[in-house]
Amino acid sequence: MTGSDGAGVWGIGVGPGDPELVTLKALRLIRAADVIAYPAPEAGESFARSIVAPHLPGGQREIAIRMALGDGSFPKADIYDSAAEEILKEVAAGRRVAVLCEGDPFFYGSFIYLYGRLAGRCPVAVVPGVSSLMACAGAAETPLALRNQSLTVIPGPLPEAELRSRLAQCEAAAIIKVGRHLTKIRAVLEELGLTDRARYVERASLGTQRVLPLREAAAGEAPYFSMILLQGKA
Amino acid sequence: MTGSDGAGVWGIGVGPGDPELVTLKALRLIRAADVIAYPAPEAGESFARSIVAPHLPGGQREIAIRMALGDGSFPKADIYDSAAEEILKEVAAGRRVAVLCEGDPFFYGSFIYLYGRLAGRCPVAVVPGVSSLMACAGAAETPLALRNQSLTVIPGPLPEAELRSRLAQCEAAAIIKVGRHLTKIRAVLEELGLTDRARYVERASLGTQRVLPLREAAAGEAPYFSMILLQGKA
Repeated sequence: MTGSDGAGVWGIGVGPGDPELVTLKALRLIRAADVIAYPAPEAGESFARSIVAPHLPGGQREIAIRMALGDGSFPKADIYDSAAEEILKEVAAGRRVAVLCEGDPFFYGSFIYLYGRLAGRCPVAVVPGVSSLMACAGAAETPLALRNQSLTVIPGPLPEAELRSRLAQCEAAAIIKVGRHLTKIRAVLEELGLTDRARYVERASLGTQRVLPLREAAAGEAPYFSMILLQGKA
Repeated sequence: MTGSDGAGVWGIGVGPGDPELVTLKALRLIRAADVIAYPAPEAGESFARSIVAPHLPGGQREIAIRMALGDGSFPKADIYDSAAEEILKEVAAGRRVAVLCEGDPFFYGSFIYLYGRLAGRCPVAVVPGVSSLMACAGAAETPLALRNQSLTVIPGPLPEAELRSRLAQCEAAAIIKVGRHLTKIRAVLEELGLTDRARYVERASLGTQRVLPLREAAAGEAPYFSMILLQGKA
């Protein structure tokens, strides 16, 4: 949905990393946009932008939303406040803004915070993308869930006690945002007798992808883009 | 991954329904395949095939895996046994087989049963797709989960007591396979005081898409492709 003049915002999922895992719809809208906006680290290249870089037509205005990424903290509200204002100015000038989102915009995406600031103030539409959840399962050759199994997605940064109680209750599970929480997560899984069911995946769909039984993953820190999958009992 | 002669099987996610939500990778591999295989109802057209129909080059051999779909029962094992044998014969003859999967192959997909019969007997690779989970969230303008929320995917056909206990424990949730279980699910959500947080979505990404607060959804049965989303507390 965009306004009658076409101006508005698309939150576009660009998939887990492989530029070929972009959808036709994402590609069409990104190329049609007057402005592209994307999260970026405080210095250096945006991962979301790098995914679609081979597809960009050139000549678009770009808004890099710079924030501390990947350290497990959440960006300050004023970063989203000012990004939303900048985007609203573009829309008010009649422009179409594509916000590039790693994976899917509404699955733990930073776009959710922008969405909360834009919805109701300008036309906003969400274009779903291939999530890292599905990319990790395919890479690990591990079905996420089948039949009438429940599947719980659990953030690794949770306090140890909550991690333990969520994992003890769940059937199939995916632990996301593993990063510097790997040691804590491994200890909880070991305590619950779940280690042998756990597969570790990092950088799914990228050339640097790694998949291992959790027991064989190195101790210590993992990259921010890593996940642990636990299959439900058949 | 395919064999040295290129023969093998790709399980390819074709997304939730909109032919534009197919990835570039899916498109390339489907067009390169010698054979396409897909689940289909006992009579009539395959939904998975219809999603990519605009993209098919023509001239490919087709294997329709016919089964009773959408009534909540699970197909008999012999349907997958014979489909796997038919696919293995194609691979043995040096052919590349694309198995078309609605949404994502490893997220409650019937491909999981084929995968279990093919893996280790021929090269098999999974190409992730846009899941109905993400498509419903985008359609409903309802983020699935953010920050350190847990997200639980709960199949609607579960017995009422298990549905109640899973919903009582979870934070954010998506209830899938709603179909003829709508009345039971509504009763449980009402009992738990969750109705006002629930959004109902059917046929996300298709022209017939509908999104409603659950309270306004009609009583009785829902289409098989329907979902209820419950946002976590902010």
